[in-house]
Amino acid sequence: MPRAEALERTLASVNVRMLSDESVPVDESCGRILAEDVPAPRDQPPHDRAAMDGYAVRSQDTVAASASSPVRLRIVGKLFPADRPEAGRIGKGECAYTSTGAPLPEGSDALILVENTRLIEEAIEVVRHVSPGENVSARGGEVKQGHLLFKRGHVVSPQGIGVLLSFGKGNIRVVRKPRVGIISVGDELADAYEEIGNKVANDHAYVICELLRQLGAEPRIFGVVPDDPEMIRTKITEAIIDSDISVTIAGSSVGIRDFVPDVISSLGKTVFHGIAITPGKVTGAGIINGKPIVMLPGYFMSALAGFYLYVVPLVNLMLGREANWGLPVVEAKLERTASAKQGLERFQLLEVSRLGNSYLATPIEAQFGSLMHISRANAYAIIPKGKTLRRGRHVTARLFAASEFRRMQSQK
Amino acid sequence: MPRAEALERTLASVNVRMLSDESVPVDESCGRILAEDVPAPRDQPPHDRAAMDGYAVRSQDTVAASASSPVRLRIVGKLFPADRPEAGRIGKGECAYTSTGAPLPEGSDALILVENTRLIEEAIEVVRHVSPGENVSARGGEVKQGHLLFKRGHVVSPQGIGVLLSFGKGNIRVVRKPRVGIISVGDELADAYEEIGNKVANDHAYVICELLRQLGAEPRIFGVVPDDPEMIRTKITEAIIDSDISVTIAGSSVGIRDFVPDVISSLGKTVFHGIAITPGKVTGAGIINGKPIVMLPGYFMSALAGFYLYVVPLVNLMLGREANWGLPVVEAKLERTASAKQGLERFQLLEVSRLGNSYLATPIEAQFGSLMHISRANAYAIIPKGKTLRRGRHVTARLFAASEFRRMQSQK
Repeated sequence: MPRAEALERTLASVNVRMLSDESVPVDESCGRILAEDVPAPRDQPPHDRAAMDGYAVRSQDTVAASASSPVRLRIVGKLFPADRPEAGRIGKGECAYTSTGAPLPEGSDALILVENTRLIEEAIEVVRHVSPGENVSARGGEVKQGHLLFKRGHVVSPQGIGVLLSFGKGNIRVVRKPRVGIISVGDELADAYEEIGNKVANDHAYVICELLRQLGAEPRIFGVVPDDPEMIRTKITEAIIDSDISVTIAGSSVGIRDFVPDVISSLGKTVFHGIAITPGKVTGAGIINGKPIVMLPGYFMSALAGFYLYVVPLVNLMLGREANWGLPVVEAKLERTASAKQGLERFQLLEVSRLGNSYLATPIEAQFGSLMHISRANAYAIIPKGKTLRRGRHVTARLFAASEFRRMQSQK
Repeated sequence: MPRAEALERTLASVNVRMLSDESVPVDESCGRILAEDVPAPRDQPPHDRAAMDGYAVRSQDTVAASASSPVRLRIVGKLFPADRPEAGRIGKGECAYTSTGAPLPEGSDALILVENTRLIEEAIEVVRHVSPGENVSARGGEVKQGHLLFKRGHVVSPQGIGVLLSFGKGNIRVVRKPRVGIISVGDELADAYEEIGNKVANDHAYVICELLRQLGAEPRIFGVVPDDPEMIRTKITEAIIDSDISVTIAGSSVGIRDFVPDVISSLGKTVFHGIAITPGKVTGAGIINGKPIVMLPGYFMSALAGFYLYVVPLVNLMLGREANWGLPVVEAKLERTASAKQGLERFQLLEVSRLGNSYLATPIEAQFGSLMHISRANAYAIIPKGKTLRRGRHVTARLFAASEFRRMQSQK
């Protein structure tokens, strides 16, 4: 099946809007997606405030003021930022010292800067006229009550945390993180944190787990299951119950010991199995109890292909984002020729590096399929069927994560 | 004091290599900095392995094989990836079925692919010669025991987690995260998670906190302290004990209620107070008990300036990284003219967006200093003293974090 059709069919079988929302403390909400519109609960500033240090006055008292004919105003109080507006009140011929950020006392409508006054015992002499509102941060001048601070779907930034807290928001409703259950299949595997002995660690599961975490999902390792249909069935059933998306690694090929596809068909239905791309050809997906399960191949390079082509879009679409959100795109110049066979796209792993403001991409050769070798890759490109992209050509590289951009920048 | 000199003086007063290291589980080490060289504890593969499905043979037995004169070899076993090499042994005239990834049985030195054989009951006919090592992933062919997997100072990536686990590493030594204590100063402030009443939330502290977290530090909010020298002294003393770096927000200006600089001088020494940049002019730093403390101004824009110019470099240098690690640089075209006054650099906040492969930067105006307004900023640029950069000119913008790159990419 063509790659894109396989994805479309999978998405058509799933209700991607299955995620409920939850309440989290604002200072833990960075990177989360708002599940509600957030209107300002009050004006900002909440009351008229001094924009500078000065004296709050009734502007009409200063109309006739000039250097040659100053107006004298009696100081009746001092206001600081922690005070309420009720802390001071001025009448005709009066003023109050008001420091930057302090509320304007009742009765005042403008602020005259200290440098436009002369202090004379308990009074000041004002040497120029001030207009109503002068040097005042007006109530609601930044944000009016009810104005939308952030819309539903907004991703909370560090500064956004500050905005929400400044309006007295302590908790906020966000979209729940999709839970992704990861199962590793194979007689030869043991969990990396158990006693491994002669076996091989389920290291691929932990890589997928970390990539999912960076994407904003909540991954969970369901451990290792041997090549036994009953045990695979039990483990998949367990994962489906606790997860929004389930992922199996290995056991999805067409060999005599590849039981995963049959177990999935028997528990639900297979949406596709086998796509026209290499590596990643034996990727598949099914639906069990309305929830998607993606079968990743056992080889790491192939598993990465299946992960980026099917698991990442599922996570993103469930979160209401574009399919490839979180995977920055750069145009990079190929350092070596890369090509795809007739009839098959190529999922080409790349090591992208930065040179000034441009990017270079070195294709990672499939024949050296070791994790150590592949771990140099930080991006991928799709090469169209039967196409050869020569050295020096530009290719659209999709970085594995935004943090790869940081790593590249640091290499400079 | 010039901006750069202030930083140099601060760094000269501190032992930036003060961080000890700690052991963490490998799957929690992503983004952490290795505190040790990690040599491969064994060869990879640990033994000769089948690179394809086939029959393990003694290559010398196949020397005379051809399509017209095939060589017959008796099948004496089957090996799968979970088996040990001792699970099989072949002698002269014998072979063993060996699936991809399975160990080569003792006595064999090559693998003949299934398609180059004919199965005849309990034997195969080999129709071509195989060379020693053909179709075999040789022991140590990927990595030899003792070869450095990762050097001290390497930042662990998701794939790196897989590599470490595949070699049986369960824990790894990493540089401890620098602890940064954050104190907010001001009578008008209350902690955002307490009852605020008429007061203002210490929202700036929480923004700084989240930015520090993204940088790989371990921030801690020490709460709010009023404008009282004794209480400030107590709080700073407490923060210095528990932190590698302390940060005060507000109270560092030259007003009558700005007690922070004096408290710091009395507890240790002031390194600088006041820098030739705006906003951020009243930033300062001191040393108490050999540990740095940065005084950030109270205005959010100024606090951000002080944070990026002094706190970020301290954190990065303590972690053994470049001063501006984690802050990707892009060349962006100015959408509006930006300028700096004579004698003062400008810390210009920018809202950088992406247009195809280029970047646009809109300067954030200082007069609208509200958090809501500033929260649109995702980068900054330093404009040299007295310089005007006209609309259309390019400016070197430093993104606040790699995640800002992701946000921009997603806007596309």
